[in-house]
Amino acid sequence: MTHSSQSTSQLHDQMIALGDGAKRAQRVVQRSPHAMRQTALKAAAVALRGISVDLLKANAADVAQAREMGKDDAFIDRLALDEGRIEGMAKSLEAIAARPDPLGAIDQSWAREDGMRFERARVPLGVIAVIFESRPNVAADAAGLCLKAGNATILRGGSESRRSVEMILSAMQKGLEQAGLPMEAVNIVPTQDRDAVGELFRMTEHIDLLIPRGGRSLVARVQEESRVPVLGHLMGVNHSYVHASADLEMAKAVVVNAKMRRTGVCGATETLLIDEAVAAKYLPPLVKALSDAQCRVRGDAAAKAICPDIEPASDEDWDTEWLDAVINVRVVDGLDAALAHIDRHGSGHTECIIASDQAAADRFLSEVDAAIVMHNASTQFADGGEFGFGAEIGIATGRLHARGPVGAEHLTSYHYRVRGSGHIRP
Amino acid sequence: MTHSSQSTSQLHDQMIALGDGAKRAQRVVQRSPHAMRQTALKAAAVALRGISVDLLKANAADVAQAREMGKDDAFIDRLALDEGRIEGMAKSLEAIAARPDPLGAIDQSWAREDGMRFERARVPLGVIAVIFESRPNVAADAAGLCLKAGNATILRGGSESRRSVEMILSAMQKGLEQAGLPMEAVNIVPTQDRDAVGELFRMTEHIDLLIPRGGRSLVARVQEESRVPVLGHLMGVNHSYVHASADLEMAKAVVVNAKMRRTGVCGATETLLIDEAVAAKYLPPLVKALSDAQCRVRGDAAAKAICPDIEPASDEDWDTEWLDAVINVRVVDGLDAALAHIDRHGSGHTECIIASDQAAADRFLSEVDAAIVMHNASTQFADGGEFGFGAEIGIATGRLHARGPVGAEHLTSYHYRVRGSGHIRP
Repeated sequence: MTHSSQSTSQLHDQMIALGDGAKRAQRVVQRSPHAMRQTALKAAAVALRGISVDLLKANAADVAQAREMGKDDAFIDRLALDEGRIEGMAKSLEAIAARPDPLGAIDQSWAREDGMRFERARVPLGVIAVIFESRPNVAADAAGLCLKAGNATILRGGSESRRSVEMILSAMQKGLEQAGLPMEAVNIVPTQDRDAVGELFRMTEHIDLLIPRGGRSLVARVQEESRVPVLGHLMGVNHSYVHASADLEMAKAVVVNAKMRRTGVCGATETLLIDEAVAAKYLPPLVKALSDAQCRVRGDAAAKAICPDIEPASDEDWDTEWLDAVINVRVVDGLDAALAHIDRHGSGHTECIIASDQAAADRFLSEVDAAIVMHNASTQFADGGEFGFGAEIGIATGRLHARGPVGAEHLTSYHYRVRGSGHIRP
Repeated sequence: MTHSSQSTSQLHDQMIALGDGAKRAQRVVQRSPHAMRQTALKAAAVALRGISVDLLKANAADVAQAREMGKDDAFIDRLALDEGRIEGMAKSLEAIAARPDPLGAIDQSWAREDGMRFERARVPLGVIAVIFESRPNVAADAAGLCLKAGNATILRGGSESRRSVEMILSAMQKGLEQAGLPMEAVNIVPTQDRDAVGELFRMTEHIDLLIPRGGRSLVARVQEESRVPVLGHLMGVNHSYVHASADLEMAKAVVVNAKMRRTGVCGATETLLIDEAVAAKYLPPLVKALSDAQCRVRGDAAAKAICPDIEPASDEDWDTEWLDAVINVRVVDGLDAALAHIDRHGSGHTECIIASDQAAADRFLSEVDAAIVMHNASTQFADGGEFGFGAEIGIATGRLHARGPVGAEHLTSYHYRVRGSGHIRP
């Protein structure tokens, strides 16, 4: 046997052992009372605070190595922890603990005339693998949400955050231990070998769901190659549409916030649509407000005719997720034209209408096919925490299983419980 | 360009055109009022009855060809239509029409302290492709359920049922036409070219969900090769577990029905588990009842010690979906042993406990990880019609999106509608 095939088969065996352990632990967590899962989450928060000095040291080593590797400032910002971010992780675990039990709830029940009774009850999904890049807090949020819903987790972080993630994992496992739950309910892939990800893609017997958290290329690779079902989002090309009935001051405040509060998040607005009827009056102050906030504005011909100083938008701009201080502006001929533009260029993430006309808003909310549709609110609210889910494991833009911010309750499935008294089928 | 690559590219273009048409029609159906979709379903039922003479002729031609190809009796039985089966399809469309609208319903709503309001509303999945084998009624049920939930359908049936399915499609399209809905909401793949299925697998831009209806090899191929998300089930290795507290007469009636009512359906019981405490008393009459119903019985050593005339069960039997008049019998040492056996050998479809002890039944119902868990009722009730869903497009044994019988309400997704009054995120 060559060295290469030997190590491939060793890696395979190692991953199967990891999957077996996670699956066994999941059965225990699935049958555990909510109070035990809550204890584990709260104890993990305490443990995280307890190791904060060591975690900061480990993270500093990760950051130093990332700088050596020439990673840019945005990358370092995602990777770096401080006291506040550690406290944020701990608080998030406590918020997850405080929410109601997503398991066991009977979400439907009915009876037949012959007396047979039906219930639909929430059950865990099983073993969930999470592949993420540099943000260490994803480890705590993902493991916490999965545990809450009775799932086991297999985490695979980027090599740059390895030291930090291992420390966070140890705190999660301390929480499990204190609650009397198996530590294998939360795991990290024990090797940085890139082939390990390929193994995860094929572990359909061990992994029920794979969630990629990271940039477009990661998500695209997972969606292309994984045989395990995937929940993820590719991108957020989100629109804020200023209807003719909009209040100008509200439009200015909401659009600037939607674009500029944080430009790098998937809920940021990328394109401003504005009704022709009010463009001449509204566009100059809107462009000024955006420019004052240091945003570059790129417009179509009609927008440039009103505001000659803005840059011209290219055809590709309408499909571009800038994730930066740049916004596209298009003048549209009313609600139908706005809906048609979003139909064509939207990525199914978050879309907003700013309008006083309630009928126009209602039509927008019911006809736009996106995970989140908003009326008179910033698209930056597209976030599980803001929705009240305690935290989120990501935002799903596909249509299957879960859509929008994914919290613990979305990491469940259901099954049917049927009660008879000797019923046989004719 | 060679002939082969030319025809491949022609097929590709043809499939993309089909997908584009379905997608456009789906947008119209998505926004149509429930009354229009109901009209289409009821008119399709009328149209189906109206063409019954022609449909029987077309079906007779399909059957004759299948016989020439040497298909067996079970195959011919699935393929063949008669007046009763056509009336059954029409009634099923009317039952689907009569159910409440699965779209638009607000299944959750809440508000934040700052006044922002959230609603979760049901929306269609989009375009659903259904690949099926010989049963022509799948075409009517699948197209009807998809239409009810605002989805467009692309059907791909086996070549043996081509004439029958084309007639059924024409009735569905007549219904759409009479309701003023686009006929492209229901389509069949216009060629029997086997490569067309490979094209469906890659149409991630056009198809939101792929449902295979057929034998194990079809489902396995779809799950292995499709890049489009798949909802399906591989098999039903279902257990009926006779607890020590079971009533013997009830056990006899339920087990014989669960195994023998129809042996070829996925909800049929394949293995009987019986508690050691009552095996000596219960097994002989249970085996006699099964034998009297023409069922072969294969048992483990403990079962054979009690009933020496039964056949010996092999190790593989416990994982075998017989779909035939054969049952495995194993003697188990109580509830935990039964749960462990089902954990190991069950396929996550339907599992049943027969017991008078309510606590034992409750534990079974909450701990068995299957799509359907039953107490004192035949596993043959695993069917969307019996559950009251009007009809079913299949039974899902995976954990994602939908589980158990899949009716119109399970062919939907949801999105969030958020209403603010100028809310911006700090």
